[in-house]
Amino acid sequence: MRTQVGIIGAGPAGLFLAHLLRRAGIDSVVIESRSRADVEGTVRAGVLEHWVTVLMQGLGLGERMLRDGHFHDGITLQWNRQRHHVDIAGLTNGKHVTLYPQHEVLKDLIAGLLAAGNEIIFGAGGTTIRGAGTDTPAIDFRRDGAGPPETVDCDYVVGADGFHGPARQAIPAAHRTEYQKIYPFGWLGILTKAPLSWHELIYSNQQDGFALLSTRSPDVQRMYLQCDPADDIANWPDSRVWENLHARLDTADWSLTEGAIFQKGIIPLRSFVCEPMQYGRLFLAGDAAHIVPPTGAKGLNLAVADVLVLSRALEAQYRRNNPAGLAMYSATCLRRVWKAERFSWYMTTMLHSNDQETDFERRIHVADLDLVRTSESSARSLAENYVGLPFDDRHESG
Amino acid sequence: MRTQVGIIGAGPAGLFLAHLLRRAGIDSVVIESRSRADVEGTVRAGVLEHWVTVLMQGLGLGERMLRDGHFHDGITLQWNRQRHHVDIAGLTNGKHVTLYPQHEVLKDLIAGLLAAGNEIIFGAGGTTIRGAGTDTPAIDFRRDGAGPPETVDCDYVVGADGFHGPARQAIPAAHRTEYQKIYPFGWLGILTKAPLSWHELIYSNQQDGFALLSTRSPDVQRMYLQCDPADDIANWPDSRVWENLHARLDTADWSLTEGAIFQKGIIPLRSFVCEPMQYGRLFLAGDAAHIVPPTGAKGLNLAVADVLVLSRALEAQYRRNNPAGLAMYSATCLRRVWKAERFSWYMTTMLHSNDQETDFERRIHVADLDLVRTSESSARSLAENYVGLPFDDRHESG
Repeated sequence: MRTQVGIIGAGPAGLFLAHLLRRAGIDSVVIESRSRADVEGTVRAGVLEHWVTVLMQGLGLGERMLRDGHFHDGITLQWNRQRHHVDIAGLTNGKHVTLYPQHEVLKDLIAGLLAAGNEIIFGAGGTTIRGAGTDTPAIDFRRDGAGPPETVDCDYVVGADGFHGPARQAIPAAHRTEYQKIYPFGWLGILTKAPLSWHELIYSNQQDGFALLSTRSPDVQRMYLQCDPADDIANWPDSRVWENLHARLDTADWSLTEGAIFQKGIIPLRSFVCEPMQYGRLFLAGDAAHIVPPTGAKGLNLAVADVLVLSRALEAQYRRNNPAGLAMYSATCLRRVWKAERFSWYMTTMLHSNDQETDFERRIHVADLDLVRTSESSARSLAENYVGLPFDDRHESG
Repeated sequence: MRTQVGIIGAGPAGLFLAHLLRRAGIDSVVIESRSRADVEGTVRAGVLEHWVTVLMQGLGLGERMLRDGHFHDGITLQWNRQRHHVDIAGLTNGKHVTLYPQHEVLKDLIAGLLAAGNEIIFGAGGTTIRGAGTDTPAIDFRRDGAGPPETVDCDYVVGADGFHGPARQAIPAAHRTEYQKIYPFGWLGILTKAPLSWHELIYSNQQDGFALLSTRSPDVQRMYLQCDPADDIANWPDSRVWENLHARLDTADWSLTEGAIFQKGIIPLRSFVCEPMQYGRLFLAGDAAHIVPPTGAKGLNLAVADVLVLSRALEAQYRRNNPAGLAMYSATCLRRVWKAERFSWYMTTMLHSNDQETDFERRIHVADLDLVRTSESSARSLAENYVGLPFDDRHESG
């Protein structure tokens, strides 16, 4: 098989890229190890930056999002049992916090691609990249995991295969530097059949730990609790989950509404960046190149930003034979990536309890929250980072 | 001897307080262990927040400051050999960065008090506080260190005697909590006979460490270098100092102008807060209660903020028999103190090299700097903190 751009991974990065390339008249094939049902059924968080919602509409994919998404004017920060509303829309000229779950985004992207005749190969096994550093890169795989070996010859290969995928490893170790921080806490997430408890997201930092109140639909709520990342979910019967959520979210005059818990799991929190994000004709995008802890809600958005930059660079190469964008791909992306890493680290350290910190450091975090409460410029900086920083150079913009 | 308010320490906190109380018609006596020559000759940094310069003028002490001070529109941040001007005046409705050395401020304060007939006892020895928790506190001391024991009976005692003074220790240990961070680096400071090298302060973070370029007068420049706080100044011959200053400040098209070094010393960097800042009729102010690393230039300003709050509270007590301000003194001050601690910690960690940090953390600091470069709200937040946050409640304001 032959294509212009071979994409490994049918997550946000890979699927948005396929759409952007299709719009630019560039062929691509997406190769994904999971089944379509798996991809569409894996529940992740989903806070979309403002420009991502605009992009989805521009790609003709906005219908369900506009119908089923939740558009909030702000978020609530809570500490010392007090709540503080951050007026995101007011601080950013009307940009909103858009809640639309990642797997719903993926359903829209997949349906759109298949309707347009784009090829997505689900359930591929043994996917490997050959010749990343040459002019003739290729992707080898087996259909349905065990089919005969097949090859996609490509002009370019994009590794959008997540943190554990093979693409990053195809860059020789001597050609990349990896930066990482493992946090000493994780998140226990639940989905519960319950009505809305509060009109916007609550990020709460109480002495016994962080909690996040979010929503999925009028009947289904999403909540997270800081926990030991090595803990066994069996140690968290529903009663203990509710007890901790109440302890971290309730205020003097407000109490969380409980419901039946139908999903429960623990995730670790990690920060990670691989530099550079390219090697020869191989380009990394999304989690393959960088991970953020979920506190800043930046993971999906950063993946889409990567492929927006990449699609424009590929378009410049194919249309105008201009290789500058491709040469600068990694440097361009990393400016945004490190700002998102900074924001995610800031939100995470500010809002979590951490036994490894001193009392002085804990007080600094409270002072950070108090600065957001009392300083418009600090609140605006938080709001601008939350809804997505502007793309900061000409190559990325427009 | 009897006075209404006994003040230990003739630093910025003690002397500003004596002026503010005099203006309010309240008697005070200042007791200082050092000689007047020592107090007026000890060279410290001196960046005054905007409202402090206004206050000095209001107290009739602005003449020399307006004549000899340096009023800068901004500061320069430098990293990766690039400079970035932070337009402090433009970001804060015209507030300036005022350089006027602390010991010059002290000369003005002392001259003003003595001219008005206020008592300042220099060279006092064995100063101790008696009865801080009672209604009849007193200060014992010996004139010129070895004179006969004397006592000042007071309504209130103010400990403005610095980090190492006796006042904080007069609060029983069970009644205070101390927060501290010792940084793994110090500053080597020099004074040099040289012309101005750059029109504003440069805060530079290069891989081999932090450097600060400041000024004292058109002929005398102040410069600092990050160093090992335990290092011996004998290990720093002038040639090594210049070599390191060049390495950390020079850019491709600019080089530091050298001169004769006539003062050289190493100071440690520390963050410290004592809570609460009061006990019975004893009130702590300035370094006695809190220390900031000098990177944010907040030490003197925070001391003046404390005594502005305290003078108003004492005035309310004496004039209107209203004890609320005194009861809230510590809580009121600490809100501002912790924000200044946060800012000083932020500037310090962002701008210094630290062997104890990971490469990930180093990149976060660069991202912080890059955010200031590209985001107006972040630059404004830095500028507002630098020139002094507004006093954030009615009791403090006006």
